[in-house]
Amino acid sequence: MPAINHQILLGSRPQGEATVANFQFSEAPVPTLEALAEGHVLVRHHYLSLDPYMRGRMNESRSYAEPQPLGAVMIGGTVGEVLLSRHPKFAVGDRVVGLGGWQEYSVVDASARGAMLSKVDTTHVPLSAYLGPVGMPGVTGWYGLVQIIQPKAGETVVVSAASGAVGSVVGQLAKARGCRVVGVAGGPDKCAYVVDELGFDACVDHKAHPDPKAFYKALKDATPDGIDGYFENVGGMILDAVLLRMNAFGRIAVCGFIAGYNGEPTPLQNPALILVNRLKVEGFIVSEHPEVWPEATKELGTLVATGRMKFRESVAQGLASAPEAFLGLLKGRNFGKQLVKLI
Amino acid sequence: MPAINHQILLGSRPQGEATVANFQFSEAPVPTLEALAEGHVLVRHHYLSLDPYMRGRMNESRSYAEPQPLGAVMIGGTVGEVLLSRHPKFAVGDRVVGLGGWQEYSVVDASARGAMLSKVDTTHVPLSAYLGPVGMPGVTGWYGLVQIIQPKAGETVVVSAASGAVGSVVGQLAKARGCRVVGVAGGPDKCAYVVDELGFDACVDHKAHPDPKAFYKALKDATPDGIDGYFENVGGMILDAVLLRMNAFGRIAVCGFIAGYNGEPTPLQNPALILVNRLKVEGFIVSEHPEVWPEATKELGTLVATGRMKFRESVAQGLASAPEAFLGLLKGRNFGKQLVKLI
Repeated sequence: MPAINHQILLGSRPQGEATVANFQFSEAPVPTLEALAEGHVLVRHHYLSLDPYMRGRMNESRSYAEPQPLGAVMIGGTVGEVLLSRHPKFAVGDRVVGLGGWQEYSVVDASARGAMLSKVDTTHVPLSAYLGPVGMPGVTGWYGLVQIIQPKAGETVVVSAASGAVGSVVGQLAKARGCRVVGVAGGPDKCAYVVDELGFDACVDHKAHPDPKAFYKALKDATPDGIDGYFENVGGMILDAVLLRMNAFGRIAVCGFIAGYNGEPTPLQNPALILVNRLKVEGFIVSEHPEVWPEATKELGTLVATGRMKFRESVAQGLASAPEAFLGLLKGRNFGKQLVKLI
Repeated sequence: MPAINHQILLGSRPQGEATVANFQFSEAPVPTLEALAEGHVLVRHHYLSLDPYMRGRMNESRSYAEPQPLGAVMIGGTVGEVLLSRHPKFAVGDRVVGLGGWQEYSVVDASARGAMLSKVDTTHVPLSAYLGPVGMPGVTGWYGLVQIIQPKAGETVVVSAASGAVGSVVGQLAKARGCRVVGVAGGPDKCAYVVDELGFDACVDHKAHPDPKAFYKALKDATPDGIDGYFENVGGMILDAVLLRMNAFGRIAVCGFIAGYNGEPTPLQNPALILVNRLKVEGFIVSEHPEVWPEATKELGTLVATGRMKFRESVAQGLASAPEAFLGLLKGRNFGKQLVKLI
């Protein structure tokens, strides 16, 4: 009896808000060594990464990437171990990071150009961190902060979704560069974590200030010298308020607009502020900048291995929990990096 | 009897739309040589420049510059001739460009650090062009195009207010760099001028397509390969439509938001497109980039002197016509660079 690979497919495209009904459970046999093609590797996933970008892929319309095909396994980053290998560079037992998707096992053609499978060293860095601060979210934060915001010591940097996988990295990297760092997060627990654990100078709770004027007032109190750099994960009311606090020649790295991921547009109230304050606003997608990975992961890996980069995970147990965990992530119900543990 | 210097002061700040009642006429004596301090120069203005940025200065709120003080002569660029000089670098009869304001004469301390008075050569370039294509508007267009948009041959560049002092320069410089150039202008005459005289590839008449869907459709037809660079003078509906046509890695130089200069905010409908298309959006003010003036004015001056850069002027006669001409400019009633001829 071959083992069973449980999978989650995109069953239908969301109309507005995504629901569990958009996902479809499926299964497939796990191949044996004899069935594995030359150059291929069988990976057993230990963790599946859940990330906001996946919501965009569920739509039919073109976002920055092709939409996720209907009936196919949901895309997603994974870490795991090599179970079977017919590729000389991968041995059974190797720990690997890849794009295995929402399933328990994946077969990767490791000999293909641009194959998404890399061995990782778990001596000092836990395996799951390669989906977080030392993986795509970490490099995302590094790129937006270091390459776009280019912070100088003494400047004020603000980051939204500050307790999340990306935001927590942005803030800690900015602190290490001598900035005043202010987070925006939802709820007192996340805000306390951002200040007390991650070492931010302040955190504004957008749930405690749900209307734009109150939020602006709280942000103003936390940024007495204005804002020089902003790392955008959210959009909507938060971006409007930040724009009103930006100093001349400020930089905004646009990484996410989670406020609008369900399809409703979230207008920017006063784009003329881009001119008034001579701002630079730049959208980016980390996968288009592979050249920074070595430098970024070297810094991030060192910080994690030495305990100077803190991170927190929300772990859902078992593949079947992935849809609910993902929908919770879109609503900010996670606390830190959202993972699904598969073993 | 000393000559009289007629002046226009800011009498009151606009509530919403500016009106002629916001301006106040005044007069002052013109100094004699004996009354002129050492290092000072008396200039008689031939032309006053009217520019959209002046509207921002009339407001009390901080824009990118200090507000224009109430009761003071309105700020403005001027060209003219030296009538009296107590500075060794300026001789009677010299043609000069400066910031003389809305008045017939000005006294400039030419020995002050950063004094705004420069001699100009009118052998091959007409004096008024130093307020247009070879002056602040020309360098504005040059900076936004060359430094921010950085166009490559074969790319599509769009510019709003295309028949204006800035837009006409942007488009002609982009054509010279091998781009497909599409203007946006108001009315069939301006559009015909942009295509037939200035050599743009196409021009979209926003007055013929006043609703956003129709305008988007017309813009789409004129930009079959999408848009790589956009030079923004206007904001509002035009910017929303352009964002929907931007290609990945497009650049937007934000020079003006004339649609919102009367105080009503003009929201940007879908800022998430900055992320989706990985755009770079940058606001700028040319006066903060004096380092580009030599290179920019060299190219612009050569193009004007050799007839390869076309430009058009709307000339109002006499200082008293300035308020009405300025209000018309804000409504797009001018056609080309708006000047007031003072002699």
